[in-house]
Amino acid sequence: MKNTFGSSVAVTLFGESHGEYIGATLDGLAPGVEIDKAYIAHMLTLRRPAGKISTSRKEQDVFQIVSGVVNGKTTGTPITILIPNENVQSGDYAQMKTVARPSHADYAAQCKYHGFQDSRGGGHFSGRITAALVAAGAICKQALERKGICVGTHVKRCAGISDREFADLASDIKALNEKIFAVLDETSGEKMQEAILAAASDGDSVGGVLETAIIGMPEGVGEPWFDTVESMLSHMMFSVPAIKGIEFGAGFAMTDMTGSVANDKLRMENGKVVSVTNHNGGINGGITNGMPIIFRTAVKPTPTIFKPQSTVDFATMTDTVLEPKGRHDPAIVHRARVVQDAASAIVLCDALTMRFGTDWLR
Amino acid sequence: MKNTFGSSVAVTLFGESHGEYIGATLDGLAPGVEIDKAYIAHMLTLRRPAGKISTSRKEQDVFQIVSGVVNGKTTGTPITILIPNENVQSGDYAQMKTVARPSHADYAAQCKYHGFQDSRGGGHFSGRITAALVAAGAICKQALERKGICVGTHVKRCAGISDREFADLASDIKALNEKIFAVLDETSGEKMQEAILAAASDGDSVGGVLETAIIGMPEGVGEPWFDTVESMLSHMMFSVPAIKGIEFGAGFAMTDMTGSVANDKLRMENGKVVSVTNHNGGINGGITNGMPIIFRTAVKPTPTIFKPQSTVDFATMTDTVLEPKGRHDPAIVHRARVVQDAASAIVLCDALTMRFGTDWLR
Amino acid sequence: MKNTFGSSVAVTLFGESHGEYIGATLDGLAPGVEIDKAYIAHMLTLRRPAGKISTSRKEQDVFQIVSGVVNGKTTGTPITILIPNENVQSGDYAQMKTVARPSHADYAAQCKYHGFQDSRGGGHFSGRITAALVAAGAICKQALERKGICVGTHVKRCAGISDREFADLASDIKALNEKIFAVLDETSGEKMQEAILAAASDGDSVGGVLETAIIGMPEGVGEPWFDTVESMLSHMMFSVPAIKGIEFGAGFAMTDMTGSVANDKLRMENGKVVSVTNHNGGINGGITNGMPIIFRTAVKPTPTIFKPQSTVDFATMTDTVLEPKGRHDPAIVHRARVVQDAASAIVLCDALTMRFGTDWLR
Amino acid sequence: MKNTFGSSVAVTLFGESHGEYIGATLDGLAPGVEIDKAYIAHMLTLRRPAGKISTSRKEQDVFQIVSGVVNGKTTGTPITILIPNENVQSGDYAQMKTVARPSHADYAAQCKYHGFQDSRGGGHFSGRITAALVAAGAICKQALERKGICVGTHVKRCAGISDREFADLASDIKALNEKIFAVLDETSGEKMQEAILAAASDGDSVGGVLETAIIGMPEGVGEPWFDTVESMLSHMMFSVPAIKGIEFGAGFAMTDMTGSVANDKLRMENGKVVSVTNHNGGINGGITNGMPIIFRTAVKPTPTIFKPQSTVDFATMTDTVLEPKGRHDPAIVHRARVVQDAASAIVLCDALTMRFGTDWLR
Repeated sequence: MKNTFGSSVAVTLFGESHGEYIGATLDGLAPGVEIDKAYIAHMLTLRRPAGKISTSRKEQDVFQIVSGVVNGKTTGTPITILIPNENVQSGDYAQMKTVARPSHADYAAQCKYHGFQDSRGGGHFSGRITAALVAAGAICKQALERKGICVGTHVKRCAGISDREFADLASDIKALNEKIFAVLDETSGEKMQEAILAAASDGDSVGGVLETAIIGMPEGVGEPWFDTVESMLSHMMFSVPAIKGIEFGAGFAMTDMTGSVANDKLRMENGKVVSVTNHNGGINGGITNGMPIIFRTAVKPTPTIFKPQSTVDFATMTDTVLEPKGRHDPAIVHRARVVQDAASAIVLCDALTMRFGTDWLR
Repeated sequence: MKNTFGSSVAVTLFGESHGEYIGATLDGLAPGVEIDKAYIAHMLTLRRPAGKISTSRKEQDVFQIVSGVVNGKTTGTPITILIPNENVQSGDYAQMKTVARPSHADYAAQCKYHGFQDSRGGGHFSGRITAALVAAGAICKQALERKGICVGTHVKRCAGISDREFADLASDIKALNEKIFAVLDETSGEKMQEAILAAASDGDSVGGVLETAIIGMPEGVGEPWFDTVESMLSHMMFSVPAIKGIEFGAGFAMTDMTGSVANDKLRMENGKVVSVTNHNGGINGGITNGMPIIFRTAVKPTPTIFKPQSTVDFATMTDTVLEPKGRHDPAIVHRARVVQDAASAIVLCDALTMRFGTDWLR
Repeated sequence: MKNTFGSSVAVTLFGESHGEYIGATLDGLAPGVEIDKAYIAHMLTLRRPAGKISTSRKEQDVFQIVSGVVNGKTTGTPITILIPNENVQSGDYAQMKTVARPSHADYAAQCKYHGFQDSRGGGHFSGRITAALVAAGAICKQALERKGICVGTHVKRCAGISDREFADLASDIKALNEKIFAVLDETSGEKMQEAILAAASDGDSVGGVLETAIIGMPEGVGEPWFDTVESMLSHMMFSVPAIKGIEFGAGFAMTDMTGSVANDKLRMENGKVVSVTNHNGGINGGITNGMPIIFRTAVKPTPTIFKPQSTVDFATMTDTVLEPKGRHDPAIVHRARVVQDAASAIVLCDALTMRFGTDWLR
Repeated sequence: MKNTFGSSVAVTLFGESHGEYIGATLDGLAPGVEIDKAYIAHMLTLRRPAGKISTSRKEQDVFQIVSGVVNGKTTGTPITILIPNENVQSGDYAQMKTVARPSHADYAAQCKYHGFQDSRGGGHFSGRITAALVAAGAICKQALERKGICVGTHVKRCAGISDREFADLASDIKALNEKIFAVLDETSGEKMQEAILAAASDGDSVGGVLETAIIGMPEGVGEPWFDTVESMLSHMMFSVPAIKGIEFGAGFAMTDMTGSVANDKLRMENGKVVSVTNHNGGINGGITNGMPIIFRTAVKPTPTIFKPQSTVDFATMTDTVLEPKGRHDPAIVHRARVVQDAASAIVLCDALTMRFGTDWLR
């Protein structure tokens, strides 16, 4: 349903890039969950553009929790988080931008909203809205960690450079959650950042692949049809701007394997059923099997670049050329990983609450 | 919501592989849509295992429409389609299978349903259930075609062999919809089928990649957050057994491009805004932009193989070895493409009805 | 969502009065719930028109459970129940009825479905569809009883004659569930039946009030906003044809009380919080408080009567007079009470599953 | 879904009586709808306790629209309205109130939220939250009026005194929308207010009946099962605190009529199908028939009274007596009518958007 997602735990997003506030309402989380505001602030900081690899906009991502938390604990009723925008234009907004930026939502939005959309800074389509999603997800991520369920994401690939594979998931996830540029191998990370800066100096941008690992999920969560865990996660992820693909476990690589290679053989380990490989990424038939959930997303290169691009003006329906000024992020993949963590955490809280009831995350 | 998906047009699935019937209820389709039963039968035939590349089960996929269609036209109320199973065991079902088949849902299902699941032939997890989804989707696909919206899918890759790229979409889609083994290049298709048979003779199986093209979709359909067209399609596709990945437009390949290459430049063509490339696969910001919708899914190799595999017996929680007998499909990718077409059509009908109201598809 | 209702436990209805089957799919009920088919048959029999107070149609309400139950227990996957119709017209349906029956859905349906609706016997609007709802609800009612939650409904008032008040709820409910004409006081019941027959002999019909009691519900179920227990129950009840009002606890009578009279004082009883009165009908702030849930519905008189009525022909848009032939029920209130029981049971299973998880009803 | 209601147009509520803000997010309203802020302020003023018939709390109901409106028009994306609370306690909230106020949600909330609920001033259960619902509904009500659909509610009965019946609906609705104490007959209104004050001076409270009329609704809106217009409206209304009953058209009074009296005969009038009576309240088979929609709700007496009441302390699970201090409204029925108007408007926008698409209300 449009700007609300989730059944048992749901998030509603609102706001525009240059409006008064952006925000999120998180509904259905168990009562009595302790909320560490510093944890939220930390995740917002990681998402925030900063340093050389940044936009010109230095928003501080101050946030307020205006409902649903009393004495540092969730009440069980909706939690609304507000994040004020800095670049607010209080007067009437003079003129709609009618030159469509290629690979942005401008033209599609025009078709849907007939010119009434807020086109300042991308409006409701702005990546800025993900700050609200991160704040809501940061609450879920804390709740999950108290139940031993941990989520971590690294930049698996950026500008053609690959990070190392996940090794020990528990320690890798822990390390990633502290990093600004989240890679497992710092040398690769430095190369990626160099490549990003090189693209930036050329007025260009780069994309990448994000890989998420989730450990500690109970078995038996998810549904065989429609609300498979893969369906729920992908539904959420394709809301995140710039995501154009998702794969679970070995994903597309599994399509070139034979069944005898791809199949995850099972064995007992300490009284628990485990699989020898994890090509299915912790999910069979849409349902968790107790192995780590692994998925990767494709983040397209930031559409904003500083080179002339042929496009159209949809007010006049004529060809034109866009020559952007100013500064924007030449890459968002390292920041999008925070969004991916947060968004995953919301989906997991939803699936767990549906399965085990509204008190389970308490 | 579990076995129901869609807001304005929704499908509900029910049934098990060895139960009396499998079926689907399609709700919310406009009244007055003419239904060609032969069209449904044709799609069911394409999905049905047949010939050398088949299972041993020769179900005929007879179907009945038991509600929602009068005088060959939709009434606007729920359409229920029943497909009888042939291998029905009317007596008590003697014994649950407790040896988990690797890469199947057996163990995950056990964790969720505590042994009460129907384990005969995969039960509710069986690929057989997709026949009901195909029948429901075949109704939607007809409705869309009458509005000039056409959906077609080819086996883009199978067993390491690639089909040619889409060229003229209208004629390619038309051709694919008539084919049993749906490829654009017959030579590639023959090689794929040889590879499938080779795997089969080795007791093994193969996977592949399916690519879907949708033409004629109006602009401005979909939502910026959560109910993006990508979210809705991926939610649906990850219900189809064996799907482990999805990508839109250039997808994962876009992550290695720079923005200046990836961005889809726009231009006017016959008074219409079009893009020079279509790396975004017809969707920007979650909303259709009038260009063809293109996506690919990753189909894992059929998990059923005829080689011994180490696994566990979850009744005794001990290691064991599974040595399957009988015959199964060594590949389902060519049949899954029919499911992909059908499932896409349902999602599109939902999105269009939400956007333009309940009479639009009439 | 149209013909599907419920979040955690949901029911989907399909079928028309003169189609092949009517049916229901019940999704989300816990696995491992024992199903007594005789219990379902009993409720279907109570709903069925029979004896003097009946329609001319003697359908037998044979039913099949075609999915979701194995070895007499729920699997946890969708349960589909089919009920064949007897008066099926297999050929083309010759002619739509275009004379609107007053107080029926005919004209409203015409506006919505533009003449494509199935108008034979009321089509999808027929009270016959409630048989499918009863079958689905009978499964839920059994599941609840095994958890000590019991639902019973009596004809509180019919044709101006009132039944006695509920006294001992446990025994009253038990007694009602065995009765064909469900009243607490048989003398009142006989008077009601006489009044019904008198109306019938005059070609007329009567309505009534149904009162439902639910005991054994745990405290703390329901939501403060939107998904209050009252909201969920009323949403369901207003689907039942002929229901035009609902009130909880003292309902409309409470509006003439002062607060000091209306308020339910509380006290401890055997270590449990109870209220001295139950004017709020077991629900405060939308949430169960552990007291019995009590509600009443208004059932309008059967719209089908055998007197000439002025109406319109919407094909020609002219005034006309309807002079019906044949026989119909002069009252449905005593049969609707079975529907009310069944429908309530579905809502309660939904609310309980949402609250306590998918295994609670096991 | 908990604190979100609606499919095509949805509202999400958040906040607590003594939190920073209460608010609402209205999602799915068409783009390009002009918003008159004075209209919202007017409705908020009518809802606000004021004058003699008031609470001690003089909140000003200042509101901000922080998203979804640009240059005075809706953008089509979520509209979030914030209303700051005045009685905010910024420090830690010292102590939970554990003495349950009779007929309030205190004990039910304790069972659900285990003591983590915000109990200051009713928290999320407070009638104050309806201010946010009114603000959201005021936007919908404007949108409807521009399409010729008007909603008005009067205090049909209060403290045993009845208002006159609706006569000319168009002018009656217009008049009601300007009134603080909304009655059709001022003399009755004065008597009601005297009775309210008399109850107040006795430390007691009164309830009443609200009657809503809706004119201008197109025919053919609503669904035969589950999402009937009655279901949607009642679902919404039972969220409003203190509502314990709802009836459509003649409602409970219809249960004592015979069919020949109750049935709404039809006739042509100016080329339009109309009914001679409107006992069905504009809805047949769940679908609008073009006649005015009429419904009444039962508003229980305000539970807060100033007399000692026996109750329990759920911290100690012991009997106790509650002797409240301060001042509260002895009646809320005249203010609840504004909520009823607003809430109805949201439901209508949802149903219309579902039926006619996302542009219809533009």
